Amino acid sequence: MNNLTLATFDWVPEMPRGFVRDLRVRWALEEAGLPYRVEGVPFGDRSAEHFSHQPFGQVPWLTDGDTSIFESGAILLHLGEMSDALMPADPRGRGDTKEWLFAALNSVEMAALPWALFQFAGEPKDSSAYKQFDSFLNLRLKHMEAVLEGREWLVGSFSIADIMMADVLRLVDRFNGLVEYPACRAYVARATARPAFVKAHADQMAHFAKADLAAVAT
Amino acid sequence: MNNLTLATFDWVPEMPRGFVRDLRVRWALEEAGLPYRVEGVPFGDRSAEHFSHQPFGQVPWLTDGDTSIFESGAILLHLGEMSDALMPADPRGRGDTKEWLFAALNSVEMAALPWALFQFAGEPKDSSAYKQFDSFLNLRLKHMEAVLEGREWLVGSFSIADIMMADVLRLVDRFNGLVEYPACRAYVARATARPAFVKAHADQMAHFAKADLAAVAT
Repeated sequence: MNNLTLATFDWVPEMPRGFVRDLRVRWALEEAGLPYRVEGVPFGDRSAEHFSHQPFGQVPWLTDGDTSIFESGAILLHLGEMSDALMPADPRGRGDTKEWLFAALNSVEMAALPWALFQFAGEPKDSSAYKQFDSFLNLRLKHMEAVLEGREWLVGSFSIADIMMADVLRLVDRFNGLVEYPACRAYVARATARPAFVKAHADQMAHFAKADLAAVAT
Repeated sequence: MNNLTLATFDWVPEMPRGFVRDLRVRWALEEAGLPYRVEGVPFGDRSAEHFSHQPFGQVPWLTDGDTSIFESGAILLHLGEMSDALMPADPRGRGDTKEWLFAALNSVEMAALPWALFQFAGEPKDSSAYKQFDSFLNLRLKHMEAVLEGREWLVGSFSIADIMMADVLRLVDRFNGLVEYPACRAYVARATARPAFVKAHADQMAHFAKADLAAVAT
């Protein structure tokens, strides 16, 4: 019997809601049907206890008994090793899942996050800096488009690699960055139509909305 | 008996030399004392064969018998599982190594690479975009400084997490970004003084210099 607890902020502003990274962990837990509970930690005043679990003061982290894990990539890898619903059983499939998990973070999100920060901040689009980051992202998307034109999921069956990649591409899609990449858009639509994503997303939104209600009630 | 081949470009311009990511893999292979050979692939004209190993047209990739792995993080994890010199043997140490491997890539390099792109491109430092990325990096470095003040290596003994983190911080140090972070600087100095790094770095420089010589000789 596992004893899984997911820690996330007790409240965040409107803008990041639906995109806080505990969503990746919720999604994986729902796909695997693993029981878990969610613990809220203060967004404003981050304690020494918080930093002992997550040295950058971010979320999420997951405790599994007396093991505490931070980084959404490391948490998904840990969960992937607990369930065939999250990672193929054969060595080749497991290797492929891991390389795509890293690729989602370090090849695609590495280009997507800076680009999204420009969008979040409403930075002007005519600067050479913006153009450089926009080119960087589009180069990566062009290659992802070629990959996704030929397959339903990254590694044979749905896996933690798809949770990570779809969540990264979803942020690009939020700012209409996938318009020229129909295979990427269809992939995001396919992934986010899964019942486990729908529940994970609704649960995150409800978790933060509950904090709003609590604030109004005080 | 392993049959490890590291693929990297046969040539790159001066600027990235010493920082091409095959260095991470060379370094790990040297630490573990694993025999390997290096294969050069064209920098200019990237083949379908290249994309079959690395879907973004980047380097490095590693072949281990008939298994081909891309993403420096995934390659390091693969090598870590082959040698106790690269990852502790106990489950807790292995878990900690993996989370710090992801943290190097997704928490620190995620902030360091955009910042470094501004430096590479000689972008003006007075834009709001630059200030945003500079703050992002410094927030991460502040937390890394606190972590590294208290330890020699990230996880008990030297591991693939240190190869990744030191290589990421080394890029920041190249542009004098660690001046206010003495523990980070000392960590980079300690890591890059290791014989395995020194050899890996010299081998990468020699590999690209050989291509220059070959070009002159034609």
